[in-house]
Amino acid sequence: MSELMIKPYSELSGEEAKAEYEAVEKKYQEIKAKGLKLDMSRGKPSKQQLDMVSDILTVLQKPEDCYDGKIDARNYGNLDGLPCCRAYWADVLGCKPEEVFAGGNSSLSLMYDIISKACTHGLLHSEKPWLKEEGLKFLCPSPGYDRHFAITQTFGLELVTIDMTENGPDMDQVEEAVKDPKVKGIWCVPKYSNPTGIIYSEETIKRIASLKPAAPDFTVMWDNAYSIHEFDGDYIPFPDILGIARECGNPDMFYEFASTSKMTLPGAGISCFACSVDNMNYLKSLITVQSISYDKTNQLRHVKYLKDKENSLALMKKHAAIMSPKFHAVLDALDSEIKPRGLGSWTVPKGGYFISFDCPDGLAKRTWNLCKEAGVVMTTAGATFPYGKDPRDRTLRIAHSLPPVEELKEAIQVFCVCLRLAALEKMVK
Amino acid sequence: MSELMIKPYSELSGEEAKAEYEAVEKKYQEIKAKGLKLDMSRGKPSKQQLDMVSDILTVLQKPEDCYDGKIDARNYGNLDGLPCCRAYWADVLGCKPEEVFAGGNSSLSLMYDIISKACTHGLLHSEKPWLKEEGLKFLCPSPGYDRHFAITQTFGLELVTIDMTENGPDMDQVEEAVKDPKVKGIWCVPKYSNPTGIIYSEETIKRIASLKPAAPDFTVMWDNAYSIHEFDGDYIPFPDILGIARECGNPDMFYEFASTSKMTLPGAGISCFACSVDNMNYLKSLITVQSISYDKTNQLRHVKYLKDKENSLALMKKHAAIMSPKFHAVLDALDSEIKPRGLGSWTVPKGGYFISFDCPDGLAKRTWNLCKEAGVVMTTAGATFPYGKDPRDRTLRIAHSLPPVEELKEAIQVFCVCLRLAALEKMVK
Repeated sequence: MSELMIKPYSELSGEEAKAEYEAVEKKYQEIKAKGLKLDMSRGKPSKQQLDMVSDILTVLQKPEDCYDGKIDARNYGNLDGLPCCRAYWADVLGCKPEEVFAGGNSSLSLMYDIISKACTHGLLHSEKPWLKEEGLKFLCPSPGYDRHFAITQTFGLELVTIDMTENGPDMDQVEEAVKDPKVKGIWCVPKYSNPTGIIYSEETIKRIASLKPAAPDFTVMWDNAYSIHEFDGDYIPFPDILGIARECGNPDMFYEFASTSKMTLPGAGISCFACSVDNMNYLKSLITVQSISYDKTNQLRHVKYLKDKENSLALMKKHAAIMSPKFHAVLDALDSEIKPRGLGSWTVPKGGYFISFDCPDGLAKRTWNLCKEAGVVMTTAGATFPYGKDPRDRTLRIAHSLPPVEELKEAIQVFCVCLRLAALEKMVK
Repeated sequence: MSELMIKPYSELSGEEAKAEYEAVEKKYQEIKAKGLKLDMSRGKPSKQQLDMVSDILTVLQKPEDCYDGKIDARNYGNLDGLPCCRAYWADVLGCKPEEVFAGGNSSLSLMYDIISKACTHGLLHSEKPWLKEEGLKFLCPSPGYDRHFAITQTFGLELVTIDMTENGPDMDQVEEAVKDPKVKGIWCVPKYSNPTGIIYSEETIKRIASLKPAAPDFTVMWDNAYSIHEFDGDYIPFPDILGIARECGNPDMFYEFASTSKMTLPGAGISCFACSVDNMNYLKSLITVQSISYDKTNQLRHVKYLKDKENSLALMKKHAAIMSPKFHAVLDALDSEIKPRGLGSWTVPKGGYFISFDCPDGLAKRTWNLCKEAGVVMTTAGATFPYGKDPRDRTLRIAHSLPPVEELKEAIQVFCVCLRLAALEKMVK
């Protein structure tokens, strides 16, 4: 069928739909017969990106390389991390070094640990540990990040869906929800939100920082995972949330997170959280029981390799050069295969790791299953909603970072065929 | 005073004691005037030991170095660690690779996490999360490791002191204690116990593995921190506790821990826990929410550097060559300064990181304080007992690993003077 002849599916006659169904079903069987094995399920950097940063492996070679001032990075100690590492993160995030706790290879673990400690010990302004309260809730702007939601779910908090807009969480809903003292916090990915890729607007950020929640220990989990992760165009400055929170009279409400997982090596990077000094002192009094120190040698390796924000931005341009063609390969396919058929809408972010795709209601799960059967693994349909349940069964997360561009092109073609087939099945059956 | 003239303090006449007090007090003031700054507080390896393992820094240099079979150690994934790393630990500990979870730089964190999850979720055989029960208790063989005790304390468990013998925990006390269903577990350092340096006897190990606790989820925290850490003489084989536990009908009762903190770099090593496969599957279902994976690149670095148990034992001989002279410097000083004066007794271990010193009752805190004022920091008196309270105020932990041997000799001389002064103060005042 030539481009010119493509009609929106909604305009197909019964017969046209049947013919199209048969053609697409045939195509699908041909694809299936190929026995593909393609992975678009997770925001994993590609081998090309990992190879690019190999110099980080040999930054530290001799004992004398292993010092930050007088601190021997190799030995025990310095719970909150190397001073040079705290300074690095402060530079990247725009906060103060004393507001930074430099951690290990996983910011997710730091998030888990903070929610875990809220549950077992309570946070700075908690009246009691969360596990001693009943019926607690946590706000989950959706579509969002499944691993975030899973953390609050595993501790028994009820997940409350908040709609995502192109400017961030629907703040009318949030402001209403926080009047309930059982609502203990909210998950946020403020820049290149996972998966929609939107950036929270200045107004949204102000409204979050100005919330007057009923819970004294209301907690904003501010996962700034993609703070310098543009893949299209120049770095877009993003404000220091801790400074804004101070100005808005909520100095202790935010816990910000970041990592180098998508800058250096995903499994062997460094992470941090940033918060007010009062929060920091309180948390350190708990974390000191858990750990003597995180891996400071790896912290030093990273600081010597990444140097500062400016140098890190230059590195991110190199990642962008790898990511951007993949991103455009997906967009091109969606533009030519899906748009003229009217089978969905999608976000066009400038950074982050995902494209969020909305099909017509009720088609996401079926499309995901068809993809799976054809050997293309995507993030599970529904995963971006609390409890894995997408109320409209329409959102799919496209993670285009891992496969080489040729494989990706093949995978996205499979996706397009599967979506068309899922739509046609409904029309002809 | 020459060696020949040294009398036990208990045999000093009033006048002799007064003269001795004045002499020792003068000596103490001379020492104080030097403004020393010596640290014998923690089991920190020395710079010489860290420098010795510098080759580990450059084991991985190129992308192709970073694979364990087909697994790219640099990327996300493999929650339970690299297969080669699980196999390494199985070799060292004598268990099976599938019983090993390979972790990050801190076995302490793994211990904390398991107790934390017991509290928030419960363990495999728990009827409910520990935090949903009241009045829970944990057995603490003492003197023991303060960081262990702190973990169970921070979660609100009552710490129950069990006496340490030269064969391990007093098993009569333990067997009696576990009849109480509120008693949820016990801390153990089975080889070169921290701080006494004793090795649990075969009989003790059997009795622990054969316990019939009232609590279905009774948990033995088996911290095998010094499993291959001889500093005097050859490696002493130590049995696989998981196999013994299976034979004794308690397959799920043990969680074993180990790390390379005192083999490679204390702050940048790798750790593991080992447990039954059933426990492993249960724990992994919880840990998957906390982490995508630990630092597999560092796991691979370690496996390539340490290779296997045999090669690791050869490395430990080199550590022993550094540790042993320090250990003997302490023993020599105690033998010449303390023994003839009858001012205490101490353990003479063949491995581990500590010497446990018992002064006459009531002198530990005062001795510690005198040391501190003279610039010698020791592990806080009482720290090796639950809540930091040594009922007889007599035990001090000597950590001789960190200072260079000349500094150590000076520090231990200061310690001897302080102990003598503390004893004499009691006699003359």
